Amino acid sequence: MQAYVHGYDARENRRLRDQASALTHLLHWDTVYPDNATILEVGCGVGAQTIPLAHNSPGAQITAVDVSAASLVQARIATLAAGIDNVAFREADVFNLPFDRATFDHAFLCFVLEHLDRPVDALQAVMRVVKPGGTVTVIEGDHGSAYFHPDSAAAREAIGCQVTLQRHAGGDAMIGRRLYPLLAAAGYRDVAVSPRVVYADGGNPALADGFIRKTFTAMIEGVREPAVAGGLIEPVRFDEGIRDLYRTAEDDGVFCYTFFKGVAVAPAHAER
Amino acid sequence: MQAYVHGYDARENRRLRDQASALTHLLHWDTVYPDNATILEVGCGVGAQTIPLAHNSPGAQITAVDVSAASLVQARIATLAAGIDNVAFREADVFNLPFDRATFDHAFLCFVLEHLDRPVDALQAVMRVVKPGGTVTVIEGDHGSAYFHPDSAAAREAIGCQVTLQRHAGGDAMIGRRLYPLLAAAGYRDVAVSPRVVYADGGNPALADGFIRKTFTAMIEGVREPAVAGGLIEPVRFDEGIRDLYRTAEDDGVFCYTFFKGVAVAPAHAER
Repeated sequence: MQAYVHGYDARENRRLRDQASALTHLLHWDTVYPDNATILEVGCGVGAQTIPLAHNSPGAQITAVDVSAASLVQARIATLAAGIDNVAFREADVFNLPFDRATFDHAFLCFVLEHLDRPVDALQAVMRVVKPGGTVTVIEGDHGSAYFHPDSAAAREAIGCQVTLQRHAGGDAMIGRRLYPLLAAAGYRDVAVSPRVVYADGGNPALADGFIRKTFTAMIEGVREPAVAGGLIEPVRFDEGIRDLYRTAEDDGVFCYTFFKGVAVAPAHAER
Repeated sequence: MQAYVHGYDARENRRLRDQASALTHLLHWDTVYPDNATILEVGCGVGAQTIPLAHNSPGAQITAVDVSAASLVQARIATLAAGIDNVAFREADVFNLPFDRATFDHAFLCFVLEHLDRPVDALQAVMRVVKPGGTVTVIEGDHGSAYFHPDSAAAREAIGCQVTLQRHAGGDAMIGRRLYPLLAAAGYRDVAVSPRVVYADGGNPALADGFIRKTFTAMIEGVREPAVAGGLIEPVRFDEGIRDLYRTAEDDGVFCYTFFKGVAVAPAHAER
């Protein structure tokens, strides 16, 4: 085997980009806003979803907010590097948005609600700044939707550690399946939720490598220390689970994971 | 509440038919064979999948086989009642198909492999009677793909009883995720597997009722006696799980289940 430096090989770069774009397409392809529409992205983080959002709606005017000033710096650099010029960034908390009522035509949140202990309140806070008849679009994953071949109890326990840790932090790593009831409870109308399945088998080794190994398993592997320190699992059992997850990326392995995307309409003020 | 006799109410009939046709469409819409193509359906049972199969390819000549003569009688009646005239039925076992090598243009199996302890051998037995370059289409469910809101450990245990009982009978109720490696191991070429997700939330109460209550939960409920008799679960725990499954069909509940469909090509005889 030759030495390999991540990202230095042109072919590898293209593969990673293709993998990322397949996932981006799955989540973003049907979110296209008209020219001059005003969009609020809540919880933009380092801009990972801001870039496809802005790319797919180049004529829209996007305002992206996040609570972290450090993340916003990275988001500004990333969008600048991507040649995007229709996004304004601003530091703000979802529960205290510094905008007048009905400021935006539409709102967009991706991988945000999973971290909040009051997701319905957050959706209502967003509704306040969206015009009646405007939409909110919400995308979330669901770690309970992950299943694979060969099946492995150890792998399921390792994933369970991530779910437990996120719950202890006030979030919900299985929130994807809850998008419909959350949007309905917040008072939105015409709630429509659709599952977006990542299915990777031996027929698509690039997806298996990019999603199973480098995205999902790498993320689960990242909670080893707090999971073991918190007494959630024995280290040897956790490592067995991680090994079994990598195993599913082999030629005869299969991995499934589902994201959920919800779109709903903000009601008239009188109906809120 | 008024008295209700299942199937007597016209509106109810239409709802049940719509529900069944939504599921049929999800599984069958992209299986259309050309006129005069010869198709073998293996394990047709009482003809539940034979009818949409024949309906979608009215010019194809379908031969449907099953090991059960009693099922074949019902299948004949059902297809006759459906006005279908392009299906010939024959009693036969998948491992001993009474046909010459390369008799059929294509083969079709739906909810068959899940019951067999040698699915790869079955796929190879089917390959023998399919012409080189012809396709095999396989559809299976996967009970490990079921997840729901509200989540419930008892419900997962009740589903687990069905999985265990089917495994004791030599089958695999979680075979859907294995279609790719099974078809590849049997020697088929160009294996392509796609997940087909049934997603039911409060926005589609007919689907929630038809699939969650009357299809999935009714099926799990059906294994109560053998599960309890076999010591797999305490009766009170099983009943709790069933109650929790019905709970997911309420307005604020959500249910996901995934079927898998695989299509693959029979290789030339020299390559087998």
